[in-house]
Amino acid sequence: MLYEISEKVIKLENEGKKIIKFNLGDPDQPTPPEVIEAAYEAMKKGKTKYSSAAGEKNLRETLAEIHGVSADNIVITAGSKWAIFASMYLLLKKGENVIVPTPHWTAYDLTAKSFGAEIKILRTELESDWKVDFEKLQKLIDDKTRLIILNNPNNPTSKVMDEKTVEKITNIADEKGITILSDEVYADISFVKTKSVLDISPNHLIVKSFSKTFAMTGWRLGYAIANKELVEKIVKLNQITLTNVPAFIQEGALKALELRHEIIRKIREEYRRRADMACKLLSKTSLKFSKPEAPFYLFPKKEGLDSEKFAFDLLDKGVAIAPGTSFGNYREHFRLALTAPNDEVEQGLKIIAEAFK
Amino acid sequence: MLYEISEKVIKLENEGKKIIKFNLGDPDQPTPPEVIEAAYEAMKKGKTKYSSAAGEKNLRETLAEIHGVSADNIVITAGSKWAIFASMYLLLKKGENVIVPTPHWTAYDLTAKSFGAEIKILRTELESDWKVDFEKLQKLIDDKTRLIILNNPNNPTSKVMDEKTVEKITNIADEKGITILSDEVYADISFVKTKSVLDISPNHLIVKSFSKTFAMTGWRLGYAIANKELVEKIVKLNQITLTNVPAFIQEGALKALELRHEIIRKIREEYRRRADMACKLLSKTSLKFSKPEAPFYLFPKKEGLDSEKFAFDLLDKGVAIAPGTSFGNYREHFRLALTAPNDEVEQGLKIIAEAFK
Repeated sequence: MLYEISEKVIKLENEGKKIIKFNLGDPDQPTPPEVIEAAYEAMKKGKTKYSSAAGEKNLRETLAEIHGVSADNIVITAGSKWAIFASMYLLLKKGENVIVPTPHWTAYDLTAKSFGAEIKILRTELESDWKVDFEKLQKLIDDKTRLIILNNPNNPTSKVMDEKTVEKITNIADEKGITILSDEVYADISFVKTKSVLDISPNHLIVKSFSKTFAMTGWRLGYAIANKELVEKIVKLNQITLTNVPAFIQEGALKALELRHEIIRKIREEYRRRADMACKLLSKTSLKFSKPEAPFYLFPKKEGLDSEKFAFDLLDKGVAIAPGTSFGNYREHFRLALTAPNDEVEQGLKIIAEAFK
Repeated sequence: MLYEISEKVIKLENEGKKIIKFNLGDPDQPTPPEVIEAAYEAMKKGKTKYSSAAGEKNLRETLAEIHGVSADNIVITAGSKWAIFASMYLLLKKGENVIVPTPHWTAYDLTAKSFGAEIKILRTELESDWKVDFEKLQKLIDDKTRLIILNNPNNPTSKVMDEKTVEKITNIADEKGITILSDEVYADISFVKTKSVLDISPNHLIVKSFSKTFAMTGWRLGYAIANKELVEKIVKLNQITLTNVPAFIQEGALKALELRHEIIRKIREEYRRRADMACKLLSKTSLKFSKPEAPFYLFPKKEGLDSEKFAFDLLDKGVAIAPGTSFGNYREHFRLALTAPNDEVEQGLKIIAEAFK
């Protein structure tokens, strides 16, 4: 459904129609110019050849220092999506299963299905502030359960799990010998402190990305933090699939890390401002939602809403959103990504508010 | 073994030793500066966002025109290796098999094994000029055979299949309803005309790359040409794995295609000159080999040679090669990639010639 909306947006734009795009989590900010210059310099210096399937040494070392791990625990991947696919591919076989709290990002589901693994859904609800029910989690675990996927902060709710929840789930996973795949791609820019699974137990796999933090979505650059054995397996899979992430892209990333405090401060402030504006505008409507604790999303609910129909109706009014059904069984919800330029964000929110006044 | 040699090379270089690297097919020429400038301009124009999982429209259209197909038949991939992995992943299941003439590139084997598919080896020999035995091929085919992988021109022999052989194999595959995965990444720079499977039958899958043709190995850019159904399947796999190849890299590729006649002429001439030099120097030794018909490789044989031992001995003399065992059961062979700078190529060849005089 997410892809159908995207395609219709492209079609409408090609017809000359102006669309405010709240449907994709692609920041409207450009990649910082310093990052572009660093990548360009690297190209000119000949960093255009085959390179390590594990990633460039200096980038792995810098990331290791930031996360307090060894460089052997880091593997550079073509976006966090590749880290997720690779680890699911390596850890999950046909007939086995993975537990995913919902609402959830579409790709987990499609990836598991692509090699015949089962997704077990652990539903969370707006009404209970998206809290995970630990008893339900424990009941879902069986002898075919290999993975639990956490997405913290969460896409589409922008909810950050409280520390105790992260600890409790990690403890359950450790007890049962199940690996957590913790997708923490929004953690570095979240508005509230986000507890990483990495700080609790060394048994699990953390996935991070340069996409959201540094407005580098199209560059395809992410990484996984894991034990050496799993890192080596991902490196071997890289050798027969991607070979390497372009070394000049990794030089750009190194520059991004050098400037990270400034870049992150700016991007976080911008998205906090937008989230506040959205909360203010939408609180005057009949929509219910939890206050975003991270960029970029809101996941409002309206009782009785058919969000698929609403998404297409709203497109006619020039605003694209993602229906809740793209994130599990959440037909009454829809997702707003506040990643359009500032003036469009306000204009788009007003059109939505009008529909629910 | 290929990776062990590479690692030892890196170790020796870190110790300050000078190594002439004939072990990897990575051209010593830099990426053409026009390509780098085009990529840089695209970055500055904001082509740094999520883009199509099928590839950029203008690049697909240009490639379609070059190959006389529709843009719907083209999917851009992160290197030809990804096109190969993706199509094997989609077409080959556990318990099924793929037929591969040997000597063969390592990755086919590792990829098939990574999801439990069987590789059936169709051995070819230097003594019969690397010709495929059609009867043997037909006997290898069973009801679990889903793919035949051709690599034409071949790595490691640099042999180009004659037209009749390509036609005959394609006809056999068509009769039996088996897909050919034709890896033609060296075809655009081969010294002799190379018949493409694409020109014989529309049922198969052609894999191409910018790596060798345009000295763009580290950029990770290739493409597959196939029927629309298979292209769509690869696009869907891209959506859950890589999302897209960076759009600015595709802009660089577009510039490379614009300048392709000049770039290809230069690279072909250079490698023909090197191949001639190698043939001349090595013909005075006890080594037997077929004359290269494409860049970059020679695959000489010495009866009784243990090429793994030889590879390590030669490393002590400052020259890195790949033992024949990296390409199948070819212990008496070794592979030379003439991708070192010109003066090193001559020096390295002389050291090898000395060992077999």
